[in-house]
Amino acid sequence: MLTVLTVKEAQKRIINSLSGKLTQIETIHAGGSLGRAAAENVFSPDMLPSFARSTMDGFAVRSADTFGASESIPALLKLKGSILMGKEPPSSLEPGEALSIPTGGMIPAGGDAVVMLEYCEVIGDQVAVYRPVAPFENTLQIGDDYKKGDIVIPSGRLIRSQDIGILSSMGIMQIKVYSMPRVVIFSTGDEIIPPGKKPKPGQIRDINGYALAALAGKYGGVPEYRGIVEDNKDVLYEAVLDALDTADIVLISGGSSVGTRDVAVQVIDELPEGGVYFHGVSMKPGKPLIYGMSRTTPIFGLSGNPVSAMFSFLLFVRPAIRSVQGLSPFPSFIPYVEARLDTNLSSPGGREDYVRVSLYEESTLKEEADVIWARPIFGGAGMLSTMVNGDGYFIIPRDVEGLPEGEKVKVYLF
Amino acid sequence: MLTVLTVKEAQKRIINSLSGKLTQIETIHAGGSLGRAAAENVFSPDMLPSFARSTMDGFAVRSADTFGASESIPALLKLKGSILMGKEPPSSLEPGEALSIPTGGMIPAGGDAVVMLEYCEVIGDQVAVYRPVAPFENTLQIGDDYKKGDIVIPSGRLIRSQDIGILSSMGIMQIKVYSMPRVVIFSTGDEIIPPGKKPKPGQIRDINGYALAALAGKYGGVPEYRGIVEDNKDVLYEAVLDALDTADIVLISGGSSVGTRDVAVQVIDELPEGGVYFHGVSMKPGKPLIYGMSRTTPIFGLSGNPVSAMFSFLLFVRPAIRSVQGLSPFPSFIPYVEARLDTNLSSPGGREDYVRVSLYEESTLKEEADVIWARPIFGGAGMLSTMVNGDGYFIIPRDVEGLPEGEKVKVYLF
Repeated sequence: MLTVLTVKEAQKRIINSLSGKLTQIETIHAGGSLGRAAAENVFSPDMLPSFARSTMDGFAVRSADTFGASESIPALLKLKGSILMGKEPPSSLEPGEALSIPTGGMIPAGGDAVVMLEYCEVIGDQVAVYRPVAPFENTLQIGDDYKKGDIVIPSGRLIRSQDIGILSSMGIMQIKVYSMPRVVIFSTGDEIIPPGKKPKPGQIRDINGYALAALAGKYGGVPEYRGIVEDNKDVLYEAVLDALDTADIVLISGGSSVGTRDVAVQVIDELPEGGVYFHGVSMKPGKPLIYGMSRTTPIFGLSGNPVSAMFSFLLFVRPAIRSVQGLSPFPSFIPYVEARLDTNLSSPGGREDYVRVSLYEESTLKEEADVIWARPIFGGAGMLSTMVNGDGYFIIPRDVEGLPEGEKVKVYLF
Repeated sequence: MLTVLTVKEAQKRIINSLSGKLTQIETIHAGGSLGRAAAENVFSPDMLPSFARSTMDGFAVRSADTFGASESIPALLKLKGSILMGKEPPSSLEPGEALSIPTGGMIPAGGDAVVMLEYCEVIGDQVAVYRPVAPFENTLQIGDDYKKGDIVIPSGRLIRSQDIGILSSMGIMQIKVYSMPRVVIFSTGDEIIPPGKKPKPGQIRDINGYALAALAGKYGGVPEYRGIVEDNKDVLYEAVLDALDTADIVLISGGSSVGTRDVAVQVIDELPEGGVYFHGVSMKPGKPLIYGMSRTTPIFGLSGNPVSAMFSFLLFVRPAIRSVQGLSPFPSFIPYVEARLDTNLSSPGGREDYVRVSLYEESTLKEEADVIWARPIFGGAGMLSTMVNGDGYFIIPRDVEGLPEGEKVKVYLF
């Protein structure tokens, strides 16, 4: 007998079932690696910066020469010349000497600090320095950013633009990443017709095919929507079996009714080394999730109901897409907008309730700043308008049966 | 004389300068429209759903026939047959009749509600109904989701997966969107060499080219990195002039030193109908931003300093990329993670301070739940490690000179 799990339990079972499953490793150009998952530790091949640099426009000096300098008694240094961007300094600095230097210029041998332009005055071939500088002031020393051998990008890092920047600066233009998982999507249901066709009475157009493909693409997969499959065990079996040749993850959308869900369960059970792991999660919407595997490939049976399907995707498919790329299944920190509920809200309890809301700002008499309010969008899980008109959702935990107006909630944006 | 603006003033000037500037409108397949900006109001062509549907597995009934039904005295209805998914009902319902119906099935003429399977029992050719249902209970009526003529997607909407879903369900597979702006990127600076080359003393590899291209792509632009341009007025002028043929937005990265910044300012001033709008923003990092236009094309002079360049991008270039696609320059709501500062922090005041932080969770004795702490990453704006090792940043306002340990801050994730 298959029991209904909590969201956390269901997530844990999915993640456990995927332990050790990873997509292939490929080497790509670092410039195109945004949003990909690093499959190797990348180490700094050199010191960065590789030479001491100025962080200001001014004069390179020996800091000791400026000690005691003031507005009334400036230090007078011999101006020996100019350091040019991208060039070695024309000379080293002996005691009592200075060289003009631009931001990013190379600190000359003998020099250990830079005095900002604002605190200097050129008088003939001399520079009057009106403020002392400490050793290393206004400079970046060799290795300040990275030492040779430092880990720059750890394996399992989701690569961001600054990571691409640091790879460029180290001349590392190839990086090993996990392949983006191929997510094959089927829609099933005898009432479903392609979006391009006109429905007869009783029929509806496929909603989930393109919506799930968009989600899969957004969250790091390569979606492959294979269209509508007849709601028949043998036909669905053949279609999924064929998909297993190339798919890293299979999504079967459809089956809000008991009969259709049964077909998906049977198909998953009969696939090679197949089996359903669980069926049903105590959440709303999204309860009728089916999860199973054939060999090492995860197969999700999502509700045909578009709202349920999208929440199931966010809560269960997304962590799988991350996991098979070597990423932590969940980001360490998930951003939100804190808002106040603008009405009393009851919840049945016993299951997590994912409440779709629209947000709006309004000043209140009591508050100094504008307050962000969350207005629940009522309507069944079959109404996609609750998602389209919504800005995001918040979660009412299983053990809470309602929330009062004004309660602070964390809204996760769509 | 060019004055230093606040972040808000600078943003306002940029947005005002772009008023009326929009990229071309193109028609694309709705399935590929994720993240694109709608360029038309999309109206519902029909009622959705177009027929009354069941939201439960059960029996379609005339609700009046169930009034008064109870565990002890069920309503006994004649079971007339089964409604199949995707088909018209085999018959209408007369008083005292029921038809079995799956979730998503079409409600028969005469019927107005569905009794859940759990509250019914089939006895021969009759159904015993143990609970009354209200009119329309467990059904979705015609137009409940959308009425014909309702605005489904407003012009200026950034299209999300649920928007693609609703378009599919209405059979709208083509949508007009604004073209993604072409963002041409140059790196300048005599010290800059391509990432693939080995730097000589005084030289560094280009960081910003690929990092800015990644950001431009992430935030809705089509990046075109045109490499390193010599830090020479005539050369840069020719390169930018050439880019203006196709660019919607031009980024010139480089110029941490006064001399280099002057070159960028001169180039922008001398371009056809060119002019610098402002130069310098009271923020850290990112102060040396240059903004100008040639005809209607915005040109940003970003610091060569990678940290400054990235913050300038997020605060100033990103709104421009949104604006020229007909989107609001700033999202209505920006999500964050609330964290507590794990140390006392001083700030010079007089400018907005963008503090890079790493986040970590730790339970405290006083608190029930784990607390998220923000640890500032110290290091100059020339140190990209402050971004690479950071999870995000928070902002110290201009009029605040420091924050105490434990202060709550809103951290925006990278």
